Amino acid sequence: MKVYSISELTEGVRAGDKRLLGKAITLVESTAPTHRPQAEELLQALMHYTGKSVRIGITGVPGAGKSTFIESFGKLALQHGKRVAVLAIDPSSTRNKGSILGDKTRMEELSREPNAFIRPSPSSGILGGVANATFESMLICEAAGYDFILIETVGVGQSEVLVSDMVDVFLFLKIIGGGDELQGIKRGVMEMVDLIFINKVNDENRRQAKNTKVELLRALHFMPSKEEKWKVPVVLGSALENEGLDELYLKMQEFIALKKASRSFHHTRRRQAEKRFDYWVQQYILQKTQSENSGDIYNELKQNAADFQENPSSAAKKFIDKFFD
Amino acid sequence: MKVYSISELTEGVRAGDKRLLGKAITLVESTAPTHRPQAEELLQALMHYTGKSVRIGITGVPGAGKSTFIESFGKLALQHGKRVAVLAIDPSSTRNKGSILGDKTRMEELSREPNAFIRPSPSSGILGGVANATFESMLICEAAGYDFILIETVGVGQSEVLVSDMVDVFLFLKIIGGGDELQGIKRGVMEMVDLIFINKVNDENRRQAKNTKVELLRALHFMPSKEEKWKVPVVLGSALENEGLDELYLKMQEFIALKKASRSFHHTRRRQAEKRFDYWVQQYILQKTQSENSGDIYNELKQNAADFQENPSSAAKKFIDKFFD
Repeated sequence: MKVYSISELTEGVRAGDKRLLGKAITLVESTAPTHRPQAEELLQALMHYTGKSVRIGITGVPGAGKSTFIESFGKLALQHGKRVAVLAIDPSSTRNKGSILGDKTRMEELSREPNAFIRPSPSSGILGGVANATFESMLICEAAGYDFILIETVGVGQSEVLVSDMVDVFLFLKIIGGGDELQGIKRGVMEMVDLIFINKVNDENRRQAKNTKVELLRALHFMPSKEEKWKVPVVLGSALENEGLDELYLKMQEFIALKKASRSFHHTRRRQAEKRFDYWVQQYILQKTQSENSGDIYNELKQNAADFQENPSSAAKKFIDKFFD
Repeated sequence: MKVYSISELTEGVRAGDKRLLGKAITLVESTAPTHRPQAEELLQALMHYTGKSVRIGITGVPGAGKSTFIESFGKLALQHGKRVAVLAIDPSSTRNKGSILGDKTRMEELSREPNAFIRPSPSSGILGGVANATFESMLICEAAGYDFILIETVGVGQSEVLVSDMVDVFLFLKIIGGGDELQGIKRGVMEMVDLIFINKVNDENRRQAKNTKVELLRALHFMPSKEEKWKVPVVLGSALENEGLDELYLKMQEFIALKKASRSFHHTRRRQAEKRFDYWVQQYILQKTQSENSGDIYNELKQNAADFQENPSSAAKKFIDKFFD
């Protein structure tokens, strides 16, 4: 297998070579400490070209139709002359690879478009302490000139918070059914959201969908607003039938324009970069604690925790005191 | 406000004084660095009395009826002579306190029982890098003599992984509706699960619930089994109507007995203590990086990230190199 130099990768990404873009993302996704210096070099080399896309986070419970939505919405963006990158969560498990429903076929049409790039990333590890590189993959897609970066989150057991901390627009896909409509969205998610799309609306459930919209708008009314002067819109439609997407697209453009005008677009990105800095400080220190010098004390105290001789946090405190001694 | 000494708290917890138990949990939940030495002292003092409960994690999408389930299941456990502690997620948002539905009334009946203890803990921060003390709160409840510790997770935007890493039994509450039944559970969650309860089954949806059960069992069949010789059972019922809970209770006892017999009960707890050790190593180091000595360099490099002069991970790497210099 050919190993690419950083300048080859940089040039390939800048030239929009999808294969090299893929390789570049693989490099920044690597959790091997030996790959990190190259990953940092690549990211620094591309830094100047980042920041120009609209970063869009998409969430919703499993079954809300996120893949279909991304496919249809992505194609709509292509029609508007935009280049679209998708960082899709590969719903592979933390214990085993693969997914129940054979997600290889997801977003097939979109993936064949020359101006679209789809990157499935493993969902495993996002919460497990292993470095997750969605933010850095996004930067690389930006450097490759994509106008829209769509980032999918897994609705269950994964982190909306993590994704909402790296995007400009956070979109919630809602479906009808599953009990009390309002209870279906916890306030934490409601407050992250900039746009709501009620998906899978058809003639049978349209009345219910409209009621849900009223309920959602009422609930949103009592929320502190994330963006001043912005009332989170609730759009009804069906991604499969291409209904409601034009309206949603316009609303999104409106939102971005407002956010840019109020400078909160810029401020939010600054805060996000700070959070990401903290994230990486944490990741890098974690690597250090397991290096040759401190590895023995680390293992000894971890063993004490495993033997229930000390509670884990107290053993950790002892390690820290010795580590910094 | 009276400040309690560690020995007062230790004795109070051991004596089953609910008020002091609450104070003890508040202490370990505190994110103030100045509280940590006392928190560690308390945890070490109680260490010897921990480990004897059955630790039960409960997940499910919002609307699956987790609160009602915990109330009914908790009361059933009381009838079996067990003492029950509940660490409930207080669905307060990360941006504002409170919940849409006024969750103060949740689990009201259970909370009035002398042998039950309910502790709502803020859900905010679990993923935001702020220390979360659910594991330590659980240890304190164990030291107070509770036989069952029920830990609720928020189904959306929160971490099933985090909770499944601290319990003996992981229970998934499923409801009917919301599209393709199988797609409603991503494989990551399926593989964490030890027991499934299809909740809110009634005469209208019983046939559909039975079909879902068949589908779930088929899907589970293709999963690598988490516990050898254990086939994850799918129990139908209604927590509100007290249906199916006896069956579920028995299945849970069966599972625990099997897990103890195979020694995986013990092994899993050891691995969990190790993970928790790592978690606290990370938390403590994070504190250090923001201390007086390194605070300036930290702020300077964070500023570079915020100014988009360096990408966040590269700035973080520079900080780490200086921090450990």
